[in-house]
Amino acid sequence: MTHSGRKPDEGERYKAILETAARLICERGYEGTSMQEIAAACRMTKAGLYHHIQNKEQLLFAIMNYGMDLFEEQVLSRVQDIADPVERLRACMRHNILLVTRGWSKEVIIILHEHATLTGEARAFIDSRKKRYVDFLEEAFSQAAQQGRIRPVDPTIGAFSFLGMVLWVYKWFKPDGRLSDEQIADGMVELLFPPIVAAAVDGQPGVSSLRMVPRAAASGSGSGGSGTEGT
Amino acid sequence: MTHSGRKPDEGERYKAILETAARLICERGYEGTSMQEIAAACRMTKAGLYHHIQNKEQLLFAIMNYGMDLFEEQVLSRVQDIADPVERLRACMRHNILLVTRGWSKEVIIILHEHATLTGEARAFIDSRKKRYVDFLEEAFSQAAQQGRIRPVDPTIGAFSFLGMVLWVYKWFKPDGRLSDEQIADGMVELLFPPIVAAAVDGQPGVSSLRMVPRAAASGSGSGGSGTEGT
Repeated sequence: MTHSGRKPDEGERYKAILETAARLICERGYEGTSMQEIAAACRMTKAGLYHHIQNKEQLLFAIMNYGMDLFEEQVLSRVQDIADPVERLRACMRHNILLVTRGWSKEVIIILHEHATLTGEARAFIDSRKKRYVDFLEEAFSQAAQQGRIRPVDPTIGAFSFLGMVLWVYKWFKPDGRLSDEQIADGMVELLFPPIVAAAVDGQPGVSSLRMVPRAAASGSGSGGSGTEGT
Repeated sequence: MTHSGRKPDEGERYKAILETAARLICERGYEGTSMQEIAAACRMTKAGLYHHIQNKEQLLFAIMNYGMDLFEEQVLSRVQDIADPVERLRACMRHNILLVTRGWSKEVIIILHEHATLTGEARAFIDSRKKRYVDFLEEAFSQAAQQGRIRPVDPTIGAFSFLGMVLWVYKWFKPDGRLSDEQIADGMVELLFPPIVAAAVDGQPGVSSLRMVPRAAASGSGSGGSGTEGT
């Protein structure tokens, strides 16, 4: 027994319940899954399950918070201190794609992004946690555009384009498919955040003086002047 | 009575059933919606509903086919003959976003893109209709990249990035929000398909001789030479 009076493995047990419940809800839908079925899948009695979980809506709320915890631990906390906004976005996209493809908690991630079944304060709380991520992305898009590091884009459109690309991956990625998740992450990062090289001779980047070049052509040409290309 | 023995409005009646059923399934989930509830929402008896629909799985299959019909009519048929691959993709993205935001059949579109509850042949058939769209997008991305009109990208990554951006819109678009659906469509098109201007003097575009420039800077400068920018 720990100081808190909980057995040391109580937390692990709770996580395991959330994982199992998420898998079931993912397969059958929230309405189509009973607490009885969740208890059975956890190899518990219904009474045993209610020892951990108040009711079905509270269970869904717990699953969603667990998903946001995972996301913040594995994505946001790793990238939020990157000073350069484009590098921050690129790293964030890469980590988020790999969370979607590799998470042993894929179902949790999926449920998190499904239309809300939650109501009232619980819904507002999860929405506010999601909104913090949207705000983070908008801020990065806004900074990147202001610094002339990406093409001008409305930060909200940028943020939700990013999210759509990343979160859709769970719908089509196949672990045994032609493309690895690393290749998908690299490809999407290059597609949405192509390297930009300033063409202005004075080296001061600005929206009106930008040129985007393929990375191969850009590497090693600091000033990015034209007329150096081969065929 | 028409030649087929159906009343002239039979088709409209059938569409109305699909629309109503889609709205309900969208709200409550497939498992959480009973045929009794669908009949009630259609102001029909359950027996009356079964006159039109064999069973619940056949209903879901019909809703998905109806969604694919709408999509092909309002998006694919309007853009598939555009010769230029980038213009084809840009027009396709625009039409698809507006289908998502404006469809009086939004629920149908949503159900279409949910994880499949269908099984067997019905599922294979819907999957094959969806796959035709993915093939269409991959072909356009492939052509565009080969012609040096977009940055090199794996066609599958391009296609699913496109789909993720477009289909995610239904999750966040608010008709009374700051951004109109036209602005979202324009913004996403510009973000994913920035105009490319060939910098090569001989005007032959090729991947190694490309420069992407903001539209404002690109317009009216045929050769795309540098040194013409203001501050």
